[in-house]
Amino acid sequence: MTYTDLFQLIHRKRSFLCIGLDSDITKIPDHLRKLEDPVFEFNKSIIDATIDIAVAYKPNLAFYESRGIAGLRCLERTMNYLGSFQDEVFTIADAKRGDIGNTSAQYAQGVFNTSLSGFNFDAVTVAPYMGEDSVKPFLTFPGKWVILLALTSNKGADDFQVVQTGNKRLFELVLERSKTWGTNKNMMYVVGATRAEMLKDIRTIVPDHFLLVPGVGAQGGSLSEVARYGMNNHCGLLVNASRSILFASSGFDFAEKARAEAMTIQAEMETLLKSHKLIC
Amino acid sequence: MTYTDLFQLIHRKRSFLCIGLDSDITKIPDHLRKLEDPVFEFNKSIIDATIDIAVAYKPNLAFYESRGIAGLRCLERTMNYLGSFQDEVFTIADAKRGDIGNTSAQYAQGVFNTSLSGFNFDAVTVAPYMGEDSVKPFLTFPGKWVILLALTSNKGADDFQVVQTGNKRLFELVLERSKTWGTNKNMMYVVGATRAEMLKDIRTIVPDHFLLVPGVGAQGGSLSEVARYGMNNHCGLLVNASRSILFASSGFDFAEKARAEAMTIQAEMETLLKSHKLIC
Repeated sequence: MTYTDLFQLIHRKRSFLCIGLDSDITKIPDHLRKLEDPVFEFNKSIIDATIDIAVAYKPNLAFYESRGIAGLRCLERTMNYLGSFQDEVFTIADAKRGDIGNTSAQYAQGVFNTSLSGFNFDAVTVAPYMGEDSVKPFLTFPGKWVILLALTSNKGADDFQVVQTGNKRLFELVLERSKTWGTNKNMMYVVGATRAEMLKDIRTIVPDHFLLVPGVGAQGGSLSEVARYGMNNHCGLLVNASRSILFASSGFDFAEKARAEAMTIQAEMETLLKSHKLIC
Repeated sequence: MTYTDLFQLIHRKRSFLCIGLDSDITKIPDHLRKLEDPVFEFNKSIIDATIDIAVAYKPNLAFYESRGIAGLRCLERTMNYLGSFQDEVFTIADAKRGDIGNTSAQYAQGVFNTSLSGFNFDAVTVAPYMGEDSVKPFLTFPGKWVILLALTSNKGADDFQVVQTGNKRLFELVLERSKTWGTNKNMMYVVGATRAEMLKDIRTIVPDHFLLVPGVGAQGGSLSEVARYGMNNHCGLLVNASRSILFASSGFDFAEKARAEAMTIQAEMETLLKSHKLIC
């Protein structure tokens, strides 16, 4: 999916909501457990309940890998189902991969080359620690995106990401160096909503890139703060919520409650898009 | 496997060789391709040819994930086969994972909890960028190890790992901060052999930890330099070779040639262990 396609999708759905399919099998409603693939049925219901208001879905691969082959098959089913919506969704493999060049090339096949791996994500999250040659192999796939970790939403981000390196913090160095590896048409950055005040500094370095912003919802970040400092003239934001939507209810009404929660967020997003004159 | 068990294994095999099972399906011998699971047959032959002289095996998960479910099944078969050697091998999931706490906990299940995921590795490689809470969930499994990236063997290591942060370089800060998260009994570090001269500095920070050292062989690092600066009184080294062993020949004699290459390395290791008075 291109930069323009993504912006048009945001425009059409009046939303920049990404739903994180962190579908922990121990947290899904009990009544689904008797089904053959409970997590797939859960994901399908969540997708059906939110497809008109979410622009992106982001399965975190950890929640599937934890169950080995059964988990991977569930992820494959989920991705096939999302594939049936074609250009109506942007899909992100939240995998935080990264390795030496020839190995990153293999990881890229794993998420982008459907004929080899069965997966055809639009984007993958990548960790920057190993540098340029660990990231570039992911950038060789036309129409695909790298979403590089810059400033994450967790407490541990303080350990290394914000340490001072010369006249800038490490996450700023990551942004500065990496933005030359690709363009704003094939790279995005992860910036946690819990660090919204730093978005102003981030926008001075990468004004035109999309930012994937986790941490709204269960992790406590503020959507209006994120939009205030992070929104650009192509929106430039995909804001992710996972647990607050997925597990809004543990009962038979889980999908309905998930939709209600997603609609609350989408309504606020619509207001923000209007106030930035990106939609009428 | 405990620290003591690992040292005894090194002692017994007179070797600190780790073989990286980066078994690229496009590079294995042609005659294996007609078999049902060519990569598993390849791995099994490599293991059989080297089990008496290699202390560890390290499948890089990228080479399996690239082939989706078929790849994961092949990895499961390979790990089950390695499991039949029980305490005679140390197994490493080279996965370079790391995410926010609750997600890293899922990744840990994926590599350590055999009843859930089918996998029962002894260790997993983890990326440090997301800090303490991204690493700690892996440390809650008794007898299991985290191998944290410190200084990698690729060119991209220069981009961030060696940048100055205050009076130390980033990889030194990673070592200093992270060594308090666990102990030398459940943490190791990745240090590339192509940076052997930096091992001296590294040993001032983590004198007693095991180091997993890739980059000998195809990547050009020197084993004697690594031992000179990195060996401690429990050896403290697992030196990895992948491509130089796996693809020593592309013919029917691939396993024999792999063994010959592994024996050359093991012989040098035996000499180094003797000269450090760790074996007689």
